[in-house]
Amino acid sequence: MSVFRSNIDAMEAYVPGEQAAPGAKVVKLNTNENPYPPSPKAVAAGREFDYERLRVYPQAVSRKLTAAAAQVFDVPPEWVLPGNGSDDIIMMLARSVAGAGRRIAYPVPTFTFYQTQAQVEGARCVEAPYEGDGFVLPVEGLLEANAELTFVANPNSPTGVAAPAEQLERLAAGLSGVLCIDEAYVDFTGDGRGALDLARKHENVIVLRTLSKGYSLAGLRIGLGIANPDLLAGVAKAKQIYNVDALAAEVAAAALEDQAWKNANAARVVASREKLTAELTALGWRVLPSAANFLLAGPAGGDAAEVFKALRERGIYVRYYGKDPRIADRLRITVGGEEDNAALLAAIKDISA
Amino acid sequence: MSVFRSNIDAMEAYVPGEQAAPGAKVVKLNTNENPYPPSPKAVAAGREFDYERLRVYPQAVSRKLTAAAAQVFDVPPEWVLPGNGSDDIIMMLARSVAGAGRRIAYPVPTFTFYQTQAQVEGARCVEAPYEGDGFVLPVEGLLEANAELTFVANPNSPTGVAAPAEQLERLAAGLSGVLCIDEAYVDFTGDGRGALDLARKHENVIVLRTLSKGYSLAGLRIGLGIANPDLLAGVAKAKQIYNVDALAAEVAAAALEDQAWKNANAARVVASREKLTAELTALGWRVLPSAANFLLAGPAGGDAAEVFKALRERGIYVRYYGKDPRIADRLRITVGGEEDNAALLAAIKDISA
Repeated sequence: MSVFRSNIDAMEAYVPGEQAAPGAKVVKLNTNENPYPPSPKAVAAGREFDYERLRVYPQAVSRKLTAAAAQVFDVPPEWVLPGNGSDDIIMMLARSVAGAGRRIAYPVPTFTFYQTQAQVEGARCVEAPYEGDGFVLPVEGLLEANAELTFVANPNSPTGVAAPAEQLERLAAGLSGVLCIDEAYVDFTGDGRGALDLARKHENVIVLRTLSKGYSLAGLRIGLGIANPDLLAGVAKAKQIYNVDALAAEVAAAALEDQAWKNANAARVVASREKLTAELTALGWRVLPSAANFLLAGPAGGDAAEVFKALRERGIYVRYYGKDPRIADRLRITVGGEEDNAALLAAIKDISA
Repeated sequence: MSVFRSNIDAMEAYVPGEQAAPGAKVVKLNTNENPYPPSPKAVAAGREFDYERLRVYPQAVSRKLTAAAAQVFDVPPEWVLPGNGSDDIIMMLARSVAGAGRRIAYPVPTFTFYQTQAQVEGARCVEAPYEGDGFVLPVEGLLEANAELTFVANPNSPTGVAAPAEQLERLAAGLSGVLCIDEAYVDFTGDGRGALDLARKHENVIVLRTLSKGYSLAGLRIGLGIANPDLLAGVAKAKQIYNVDALAAEVAAAALEDQAWKNANAARVVASREKLTAELTALGWRVLPSAANFLLAGPAGGDAAEVFKALRERGIYVRYYGKDPRIADRLRITVGGEEDNAALLAAIKDISA
């Protein structure tokens, strides 16, 4: 007999995008990392860190990190809850808001970790399909579900589509449960302001930011939940005691303080995204307009699974979602640096030749 | 109306021992940290880390860290699950093994985070009191409960008492649920071998080790679950995707590889523990014999709450458990460095003068 809960036995483990061994020579366009390095100020904060401080526990909530985030997001420090990546805060939300007998709603396709967390908690999943060829946010479906916890990734992954502010405003105003707007990719949208105003205005709204994308710190695991202190206090009951290590907090604070570095890299990624969109379109690919640092694109006349494999054989990793019929004819391709993108295009031409 | 689960609203948040601001001048004997710095090899691993690696996600399970741990614990690498501190693995266990309608058992008094995790999951707590003045492990009570998940901290905190191997063997053999033996303090026991053999022999046993105590890396947040791969696979379904950051994994691997440093510091702490026990006893304190890096001790003829406050006024932090009548007449005092311990003794003499 299994020692685990029945919902645990019934679920499959989350399968992350492949990570090559450190130093391996691949063109890695499969997990939406930033092609540019982290801020030199963040690196200096790490190198100059007083390692003797690791002898003692970190603060349960790093005051330095929340102060730096508060400055950037223009909220009081007590409106910021740091996490061991956004995953950590998503997990706290699932645990504190939605256990067995409660519901977690999200539009699909999206980041499948929301589903994973519902499954771990034994909560019921309510999946509302993104609408039409443009993958428009299903506001009515989510309002109708009115789940205890609703996740919206905006811009969404794997589509790259951003919902207009009015749609999120309607959701925030209409839902009686918690609305989590996961803005992992917000740094690649127009003004990068995102939905922070909704968190300020609605006591049921929490906005997630991460240092994994715009700040080039996926390996550091820092996410930030931004919401009113009452909401954060309930969510934090599901927190690990010391969930962010002292060294990571220090590096993250320095990265947040260097907005110029992040903005310059984000602008380069956005320019590359537009260029890559045009180039793939010219090759006959169907490319969904993206507000993020990746493209969801269907190969010209080709089988996405085959192109995925052929690219992999050429050392180019992209993401393929074979299990989802709505996007099984496409690939999710991270916008890389100029060399990465050139290698991708050359490989595509080679494959179709 | 609250947006949270009723069990979340009903529970109180875990309150960690106080962490002074970085650089503050206090004698910190309240959270069982190691008085000696981390291994120079671990520090070098951090300083020489290639920060550009932080641009990409870490491995979901660090191969370097599991290899280093496997070497130390003499198990295959797939028997090791790294966590963001032991808290992370305790949380995965609570989520995967014991949700609503299931039970988490533990002897009391102990690390209260087990109770916190049961409360977050809505699992039922079964508390078996440690027996007698010696705080002996209540093997029969735990066997009778036969909960889905049983936690035993060994040596236990806040008592410092270690259970004999035969007692743990009986528990492991008699429980049909999961037995988690949390060996945070094992580096300060006689041979430091702990209960790894029980994990090798019993498929329901997981042993926790941490780098927070013996390795002087509380600020880094690295815990390790050691169990057979089938048990770990179920537990890891409740894992955050990338729960250990790339930099922390590198530093931790180097710390594990420097057993000589850890062992030398642990031996110094053990010697100080014996000395401090004798000195407090000479001052009329009642000191429970400890196998850990702290003492549970009752002030001579004094009120523990008052002595706690008087020590705090003199810049000396210890831990006081006023809510638990069995130990409310004692203080938990971390064994510090020689200067810390001298300052403690001087303050105690000053208070009683």
